[in-house]
Amino acid sequence: MSHTTKEKAKLLGRIRRLKGQMEAVERALEAEAPCGDILNLVASVRGAVNGLMGELIEDHIRMHVVDPDKEADAERAQGAAELIDVVRKYLK
Amino acid sequence: MSHTTKEKAKLLGRIRRLKGQMEAVERALEAEAPCGDILNLVASVRGAVNGLMGELIEDHIRMHVVDPDKEADAERAQGAAELIDVVRKYLK
Amino acid sequence: MSHTTKEKAKLLGRIRRLKGQMEAVERALEAEAPCGDILNLVASVRGAVNGLMGELIEDHIRMHVVDPDKEADAERAQGAAELIDVVRKYLK
Amino acid sequence: MSHTTKEKAKLLGRIRRLKGQMEAVERALEAEAPCGDILNLVASVRGAVNGLMGELIEDHIRMHVVDPDKEADAERAQGAAELIDVVRKYLK
Repeated sequence: MSHTTKEKAKLLGRIRRLKGQMEAVERALEAEAPCGDILNLVASVRGAVNGLMGELIEDHIRMHVVDPDKEADAERAQGAAELIDVVRKYLK
Repeated sequence: MSHTTKEKAKLLGRIRRLKGQMEAVERALEAEAPCGDILNLVASVRGAVNGLMGELIEDHIRMHVVDPDKEADAERAQGAAELIDVVRKYLK
Repeated sequence: MSHTTKEKAKLLGRIRRLKGQMEAVERALEAEAPCGDILNLVASVRGAVNGLMGELIEDHIRMHVVDPDKEADAERAQGAAELIDVVRKYLK
Repeated sequence: MSHTTKEKAKLLGRIRRLKGQMEAVERALEAEAPCGDILNLVASVRGAVNGLMGELIEDHIRMHVVDPDKEADAERAQGAAELIDVVRKYLK
């Protein structure tokens, strides 16, 4: 993925938190927690997965397609910035 | 949640598989796997979370609202069956 | 659907607004509006369709399954209220 | 949007079909069609909106960011192809 070290650490942090959230679902189910609580926990997991997906797609655009902050071609830079904007709205 | 033991075992199996999928994402990121591969792994996690959410909602309808297979009131039974159908389509 | 007249009027209002939004997308495309503008218009349509879907499912639960505000069985009423809550979170 | 004429005609066709689907929902609601039928019609509208969104994003990538079929830089071409692939999977 050739992420910068900083970006990689950030993504790994997200994934570990997500694993922690999955373990909370597991414990809630084992403890026979109320159904509504379990549904809320899984809804949070879903939100976190969408957020991770959005971040990975944004990183992919910046690193492997066009980084709007570094691109010399102004039209491409703008096109990539608009694309990142749509991805953020879509996957939050 | 007062799930039956069988249903509970099934859900726990799903959650453990999901944790395994998260660990695959973590390993891929640590190993700096190609970005496209990581995106595909996370897309699979997302599909699995949606599937789990759909199953939990269906269970909730059957156990805490109306179970179409056990309900005496025919209209309610049909209404619940249609609802489960929509949830399945929506969350697959 | 046997909606109340009031509920029906509300849903028809939503659908007509949605048609209006689709026509705005059509005009923007015909006028060759900037791509980013068209994407934002379609993202709004998507949000409105999800909102309509959520409202229809909630109405379906109340009218054809269990209405938490009218149900005599307290457990069912609570189960239906939790279900409506999940649908709202999921489809906003 | 500076679409080619052919692409524009294709998108307008999609939008007009979508308007037709919205009108079918409106008629079904006015005629008090069964709730399950209306839910299925709206679910189809939702699928069509997602499909339109996916096509617009793909067009945007090709026209304003990087077209994998025309890009001289092989890495960028591959990055854009992977991105289009993810968008297609995500928004179908």
